[in-house]
Amino acid sequence: MLNPYENAAPLAVRQKIRAGEITGQTSGMCLGYAQANLAVLPKDLAYDFLLFTQRNPKPCPILEVSDVGDPCLHKIAKDCNIATDIPKYRVYEKGVMVGEYTDVTKFWRDDLVAFLIGCSFSFEAELLESGVTVRHIEEGKNVPMYLTNIPCEPAGVFSGNMVVSMRPLPNDQIVKAINITASMPRVHGTPVHIGDPEAIGIHDLSHPDFGEAVTIRPGETPVFWACGVTPQSIVMNSKPDFCITHAPGHMLITDVKNADLKF
Amino acid sequence: MLNPYENAAPLAVRQKIRAGEITGQTSGMCLGYAQANLAVLPKDLAYDFLLFTQRNPKPCPILEVSDVGDPCLHKIAKDCNIATDIPKYRVYEKGVMVGEYTDVTKFWRDDLVAFLIGCSFSFEAELLESGVTVRHIEEGKNVPMYLTNIPCEPAGVFSGNMVVSMRPLPNDQIVKAINITASMPRVHGTPVHIGDPEAIGIHDLSHPDFGEAVTIRPGETPVFWACGVTPQSIVMNSKPDFCITHAPGHMLITDVKNADLKF
Repeated sequence: MLNPYENAAPLAVRQKIRAGEITGQTSGMCLGYAQANLAVLPKDLAYDFLLFTQRNPKPCPILEVSDVGDPCLHKIAKDCNIATDIPKYRVYEKGVMVGEYTDVTKFWRDDLVAFLIGCSFSFEAELLESGVTVRHIEEGKNVPMYLTNIPCEPAGVFSGNMVVSMRPLPNDQIVKAINITASMPRVHGTPVHIGDPEAIGIHDLSHPDFGEAVTIRPGETPVFWACGVTPQSIVMNSKPDFCITHAPGHMLITDVKNADLKF
Repeated sequence: MLNPYENAAPLAVRQKIRAGEITGQTSGMCLGYAQANLAVLPKDLAYDFLLFTQRNPKPCPILEVSDVGDPCLHKIAKDCNIATDIPKYRVYEKGVMVGEYTDVTKFWRDDLVAFLIGCSFSFEAELLESGVTVRHIEEGKNVPMYLTNIPCEPAGVFSGNMVVSMRPLPNDQIVKAINITASMPRVHGTPVHIGDPEAIGIHDLSHPDFGEAVTIRPGETPVFWACGVTPQSIVMNSKPDFCITHAPGHMLITDVKNADLKF
């Protein structure tokens, strides 16, 4: 899969995104650099959400939280305006999507807080580097994701079950995959479950709740990781008055190398 | 150092503390179980403090945050009232200590939030178990702690420099100590500095800012870990209207085994 921006520098790509020259998905861009999920909430919900992420670090690994009202990031990306530097956003009112935009400057308010959340792209790059199978990439699909019966720890107005992503692994690669992801707690960390899908409330692997089903071959076991779709799902359940997220697959490309997310 | 409660169950000891039968330091009690630092703040400061801990996980590793107004913990200790189950508390108004108490029920308010923060006792137990030298325990002293020139990431009203604890290690034990503490990110994790104290703004190891100086022998190197005194020091700098902490050495004994704080 050739991407014209696969070897580009993150800042250069963010500038093209800000200028409206890139509006598509970010998968495959700036290889080696972490990409991040976005959730923007008003301050009056930010405490509950921050506490939710603290209580549920596996599905909600925070990479950066902006200062109240400030659209600029200071840690994971420099010269970065979070209202312009993502290719596509979704704006929600009372839990209902009211539109998709390539720039949300006109929606920005003095009481907004941006949460940047780690993404499984980062650990997948490390798995591939170590020769571990990543089936949905092999098959050119979006990773299959499932709603489970695993309850998240509630916090204030936020509660609900965990969403997981699934990657089938040859049995002799499972330990290696656990060790690699164990070293990356800031991007979901170790699997939450290995094997029987029923044990976590998943009845049919061929019908994922999000993404696409992938082939599971003989001698392979499904391995489940906490998924960054969880916080979006939880936020939408609570029907906040106002919320901005990235559009699926349209992530923030950060200046942080995946390798720097180890410990 | 024999302690009559070294093999007691945490709940049994917390009940004696609640009943006022134990009012002393908790060091050496319930061996194998994690102990936690306490900071209680009004809700209007809790967001900034929670964000501060998120931005500074090494000095401020959160084990649990209570629900607003609820003095009960639900995760790291069962049947636990945080206003009664610590042997000694300090109450502060506008940054000034107004008293020490063995029970703070009468000070509890509907807007208070309790933060329980991991403690180096947990990783010291693992170091000892693995044969790594812990000098201040050998010498029967409190660990030496130093204010550094390492700035914490500020969050809202909270800012300041990091406090570190120092343990001198024989040079052939340093790598082992790093690996052991790397596996315990919820109790300060890896060292923040190894070697030259001047490099982090410490001019005289024989005069710690808190705790007591320890012997550094030939062939040993000082190793510095982020210290749980940091959040207390930061909170006091901001002179909050109201705050409760544990008294030094008088910690919450949790139901969580140190071994369970690995990843």
